[in-house]
Amino acid sequence: MPEGDTLFERACRGERGERVPVWIMRQAGRYLPEYRKLREKVDFLTATKTPDVAARITLQPMERFPLDAAILFSDIMTPLEGMGLDVEFSPGPVLPKPIRSVEDARRLRLLDPEEETPYVLEALRLTRAELPSDRALIGFAGAPFTLFCYMVQGGGSKDFMEARSFLRRETEAAAEVMDLLGRSMVRYLVAQARSGADALMLFDSWVGLLGPDSYRRFALPLMRRVITGVQAETDVPVIYFANGGATLLEAAQEAGSHVLGIDWTLPLSQAVARLGSDAVVQGNLDPAALFAPRDELDQEIRTVLSQGAEAAAHIFNLGHGIHRTTDPDQVAFLVDRVHHHSAR
Amino acid sequence: MPEGDTLFERACRGERGERVPVWIMRQAGRYLPEYRKLREKVDFLTATKTPDVAARITLQPMERFPLDAAILFSDIMTPLEGMGLDVEFSPGPVLPKPIRSVEDARRLRLLDPEEETPYVLEALRLTRAELPSDRALIGFAGAPFTLFCYMVQGGGSKDFMEARSFLRRETEAAAEVMDLLGRSMVRYLVAQARSGADALMLFDSWVGLLGPDSYRRFALPLMRRVITGVQAETDVPVIYFANGGATLLEAAQEAGSHVLGIDWTLPLSQAVARLGSDAVVQGNLDPAALFAPRDELDQEIRTVLSQGAEAAAHIFNLGHGIHRTTDPDQVAFLVDRVHHHSAR
Repeated sequence: MPEGDTLFERACRGERGERVPVWIMRQAGRYLPEYRKLREKVDFLTATKTPDVAARITLQPMERFPLDAAILFSDIMTPLEGMGLDVEFSPGPVLPKPIRSVEDARRLRLLDPEEETPYVLEALRLTRAELPSDRALIGFAGAPFTLFCYMVQGGGSKDFMEARSFLRRETEAAAEVMDLLGRSMVRYLVAQARSGADALMLFDSWVGLLGPDSYRRFALPLMRRVITGVQAETDVPVIYFANGGATLLEAAQEAGSHVLGIDWTLPLSQAVARLGSDAVVQGNLDPAALFAPRDELDQEIRTVLSQGAEAAAHIFNLGHGIHRTTDPDQVAFLVDRVHHHSAR
Repeated sequence: MPEGDTLFERACRGERGERVPVWIMRQAGRYLPEYRKLREKVDFLTATKTPDVAARITLQPMERFPLDAAILFSDIMTPLEGMGLDVEFSPGPVLPKPIRSVEDARRLRLLDPEEETPYVLEALRLTRAELPSDRALIGFAGAPFTLFCYMVQGGGSKDFMEARSFLRRETEAAAEVMDLLGRSMVRYLVAQARSGADALMLFDSWVGLLGPDSYRRFALPLMRRVITGVQAETDVPVIYFANGGATLLEAAQEAGSHVLGIDWTLPLSQAVARLGSDAVVQGNLDPAALFAPRDELDQEIRTVLSQGAEAAAHIFNLGHGIHRTTDPDQVAFLVDRVHHHSAR
């Protein structure tokens, strides 16, 4: 199969293939017994930093389900250490020395992916070598605003107010951090594409904390530069997931990605009505639907497919990461139903 | 002043008065040094259960700022104990015995507010007696879906998946719990109105976890019954805050409240365009704007006022609870600017 020709990659470029491709956010993770078994012997951070382990975990769901794409087992926090910030997991990310001043901001350095995250690149190479040629491999990074949230807050938060107030109080330092994050993520993503990633995803997990005006002011300029920067160096498609961003969808589209990921709270038909029928969308089954009886789950899958049919192309996914208590048999059912219902 | 005639109450009924009324979610709380001082001597739970302390805290911001309404110092979890569920705070709510089965659900009982939460009603009477007659007193309750989330999850959560999967797996038990919550909150709100509350607010803090279809299926029928039930017993206005509900705004409107609270991520002009110019809206300055320099804060206040002017009436508020690290002087500035800019 020629490069760039998987069903998944063709969908990213707006082409409707023989069926709707499907993969699942966090598909390599805790809902799988084989993942939990492997993790008994190796902690999370070590797993992300050991190429053959990361590749193994990335491939686990591909061996169990006929998914159309694999996503590298890694974490959006992984490159931050290489920018000069310590990150621990307990189990969520904790940054013992968050950015709280201009001086803190100046401690950061531009990421050199080959030097600082060689294990990520090697894991991609190992995975790509083992993955069947008709399956795509997705590399990823955190979007600058979301990484900024963690870097300033120092860990997870409901409102990330420390970070959001820093944006308002320390505008110059905040802009410097965002700029450095943007340039680092361009390098990180380009290096991933050169190491075998067939598509690149940007996770903006916390961008839903911004209204459209704040998004345009604090996040969009950098997002546009990151996506433009990546596209200047590689032609792999870019997927942008602005989680919780129902009110800033049109602005997020201006960032210029090939595909927009849509969370489960915004019906795909509404997303497409707002984005235009040239848009390519990814999503967006409610992860809670996997806990429903199968007839109900099947009905919700059909609804998502039928709404996604209004877009130029559609990549089926959940509207958020799969929950760790999900029954893997429900995932098998989902993948089968997506393929079955969408086959031409 | 005749009953029901405060500026705030008139705005709730769609009347534009001499200026836009303003109050602030969580205005009685940790950003105030006088609150922190009082709390050194009394823990949170005791404060909510001791009428003169709760009244004192409720009145603290009213003495410091010319706010148009006071909101009772209490918690949405307060009535759950009277329904048969233990609730602790550490510091967020923790329910040691969450609802996880039909049997658990059947342990719950209908709330008798006079019997189980007399301190709430007494705190309202004490506050109303001390509050100037041109200031309104707001009582409140959690919306059934949000309370259901805590009752099943057992505490705070990013995704409340335990609760959301329970809705799908245990439909009958879930419906029973929701029904009991709905009937209990009607009783609780009506009792508050009879004890001096001039308006009643329903906080649906976690409803943004539902897309519009799930909202219509799992939450809206109950919300409509709660609001109808309250309105059958009292004529005080009802404010419904569907937090994070940008994608379900039209459905939330069908619940039938007098006022809809809008969070900061949905510009008021967009909310009014979708709700119609007969709508009364409350909101929605970004709480992070209080950390900006004053010229920027002033500009954002003007934007919210100008967008709110498109509605039948507008109650100025933040788009979420005020953050504990906010400078009270910024709040003084905000209240002054809202009054100044909106004066006719």
